[in-house]
Amino acid sequence: MASEKPIVAVTCTAPVNIAVIKYWGKRDEDLVLPINSSLSVTLHQDQLKTTTTAAISKDFTEDRIWLNGREEDVEQPRLQACLREIRRLARKRRSAGDEDPAALGLSYKVHVASVNNFPTAAGLASSAAGYACLAYTLAQVYGVESDLSEVARRGSGSACRSLYGGFVEWQMGERADGKDSIARQVAPESHWPELRVLILVVSAEKKLTGSTAGMRTSVETSPLLRFRAESVVPARMAEMARCVQERDFPGFAQLTMKDSNQFHATCLDTFPPISYLSDTSRRVMLLVHRFNAHHGRTKVAYTFDAGPNAVVFALHDTVPEFVAAVRHCFPPESNGDKFLKGLPVPPVPLSDELKAALDVDPTPGGVKYIIATQVGPGPQILEDPRAHLLGPDGLPKPAA
Amino acid sequence: MASEKPIVAVTCTAPVNIAVIKYWGKRDEDLVLPINSSLSVTLHQDQLKTTTTAAISKDFTEDRIWLNGREEDVEQPRLQACLREIRRLARKRRSAGDEDPAALGLSYKVHVASVNNFPTAAGLASSAAGYACLAYTLAQVYGVESDLSEVARRGSGSACRSLYGGFVEWQMGERADGKDSIARQVAPESHWPELRVLILVVSAEKKLTGSTAGMRTSVETSPLLRFRAESVVPARMAEMARCVQERDFPGFAQLTMKDSNQFHATCLDTFPPISYLSDTSRRVMLLVHRFNAHHGRTKVAYTFDAGPNAVVFALHDTVPEFVAAVRHCFPPESNGDKFLKGLPVPPVPLSDELKAALDVDPTPGGVKYIIATQVGPGPQILEDPRAHLLGPDGLPKPAA
Repeated sequence: MASEKPIVAVTCTAPVNIAVIKYWGKRDEDLVLPINSSLSVTLHQDQLKTTTTAAISKDFTEDRIWLNGREEDVEQPRLQACLREIRRLARKRRSAGDEDPAALGLSYKVHVASVNNFPTAAGLASSAAGYACLAYTLAQVYGVESDLSEVARRGSGSACRSLYGGFVEWQMGERADGKDSIARQVAPESHWPELRVLILVVSAEKKLTGSTAGMRTSVETSPLLRFRAESVVPARMAEMARCVQERDFPGFAQLTMKDSNQFHATCLDTFPPISYLSDTSRRVMLLVHRFNAHHGRTKVAYTFDAGPNAVVFALHDTVPEFVAAVRHCFPPESNGDKFLKGLPVPPVPLSDELKAALDVDPTPGGVKYIIATQVGPGPQILEDPRAHLLGPDGLPKPAA
Repeated sequence: MASEKPIVAVTCTAPVNIAVIKYWGKRDEDLVLPINSSLSVTLHQDQLKTTTTAAISKDFTEDRIWLNGREEDVEQPRLQACLREIRRLARKRRSAGDEDPAALGLSYKVHVASVNNFPTAAGLASSAAGYACLAYTLAQVYGVESDLSEVARRGSGSACRSLYGGFVEWQMGERADGKDSIARQVAPESHWPELRVLILVVSAEKKLTGSTAGMRTSVETSPLLRFRAESVVPARMAEMARCVQERDFPGFAQLTMKDSNQFHATCLDTFPPISYLSDTSRRVMLLVHRFNAHHGRTKVAYTFDAGPNAVVFALHDTVPEFVAAVRHCFPPESNGDKFLKGLPVPPVPLSDELKAALDVDPTPGGVKYIIATQVGPGPQILEDPRAHLLGPDGLPKPAA
């Protein structure tokens, strides 16, 4: 059958994930093995996803890749590591005697096209969704059914956590070859239906230190980072898993904030110091602490990755008031009607008591917009051939 | 003789000190015992000092104190602890059989007046100079000649380091009663004559967490602080003492910056997080790193205490160019002629290469002014009775 088709194409989607116990620092740069385990929440693909089509054909003369419509260098080491690893798994499967027509494609070259449904300007870690999607899609093409952690991880460490929905841990593992450094689902996306996620996109104020270079400098220079990895994170992983399993929001929220702060503390302890939090980031932190103090309990949590955008967790019934508080502290400039994207959030008035408790000079435009989303599933296969990003000729379809 | 005078008055001055290995966290709140040793540079009193007059008289009916001309509550616990401790030392001396007329004054009440020659708005830790001056002055009044670390420390921990000139370490000690938690001179003020200190006074942007409360929260909540105190600081104390002894400026400078950053990292690891660095502070940090990178060696160092002001160390021949770089990044607003206080710094042009290397959008007024100073001596006795802040009636003299 396959030989009658000039091209075998598969299209899949994969989600973004946000770590609540942070990954920062590799113990092996080549194999992308971390110095500590991490735990993340998978975000819903209705708001944020990567879509990838992979195709093989005996007519293709070289491996090629297009990201968001632009052809990229297929020789980049991380991409090559992913391709090498998925082909190794495919060969292993075939040699095990489990014949599959798709595995025949191992001798063919592959074309890959990938797009994000969210702007790069949002500063969200698109590489995690991107490499998870690449690994998952190539696995369909080559009929690989084994664990894909290593394929995704070789592209971008945190990508292995985007292979599952819900709440996911990346176990650091102990082996030098990394075979036990794998992602595992802690709880499915249906586990905590009340949980909501708000992404507060702030104006980028300066150039960032890339996370690969930043991690390396931190591992080399921060005494606090090693201590964190060895002596703080193990207990936090267990505590975070408990909070998720018991749906203990205050526990989850406090530990999420503490771990974000500790990650940024190790960045400051790096030499020269790394600073990802902007003044707006710090204003969001203050807003969250004052919001919680006003209510006398932890109703909202922030976390920040290697950039100034805040990711905020809250239960669904807290969201309208918190969004109103964000609007109060960061009045939208011109795009008032586009300030809120994603899940609908009903407008509510802000009490004078809460306004007084927030006690801020408003920063107009500090938050550019909010994406409201929730916990979501892992990668999906799109069965409809119209979803393919590559045409019958193996080249990207013209943008509609 | 003493009985013929209605009043015995002594006036002394004491310096400000800036820690290069930071003190943050007490192991005993009452005795003011720290969780780690610290090391500081004593600043010259030509630029920054506290002047204190203490007087005793049989006519005084109660202990009284005036700070910067305003009477303060003499019952505040830290002040009482200092008075109690110095009187205990005086009694101990007298009971040892060493008779001294001044010691007779133990039954008299004391009046104290104290002024700073620098504005409180400068945000400099005036309590260290203040309590060191109080301890030193009371010691003269009561004829106490023993170590004054405990007297000063009970007022404000870092005050014990202002009891000596030059480079001073506060040994944390091990005893529960704090008798071995004392300050000691590492090197005198004459040891490193090329060293200069610039205080960059920045606009205070927000309310600060007081250091007493901040330390307590950090000790209670930051896992990184305990590790720092136990496992990082001991080696840093030895290394900093070596850098001072060998006048190794790059080593001194790098360790000073690393330790400042680590202190602020533990503040960020505190929950809720504490933030003393403002955006301007971070811009100064970036300026210093780019200045050093441009020169290919560490010529300048920053350190920050519990506030946004930067204290910068450099050798004297680096100062003019660095001050020009500060003027370039933070153009003075209206007070161009009052931008630089203290030691004279000749103006020099800034090379286009350095301007390009700094690569900043200037922040007008971000730095309000600079105080240029150097390493200085410890407390001094002023022999001239005209220096007394208290008149023959035991009350503050009217401001001239």
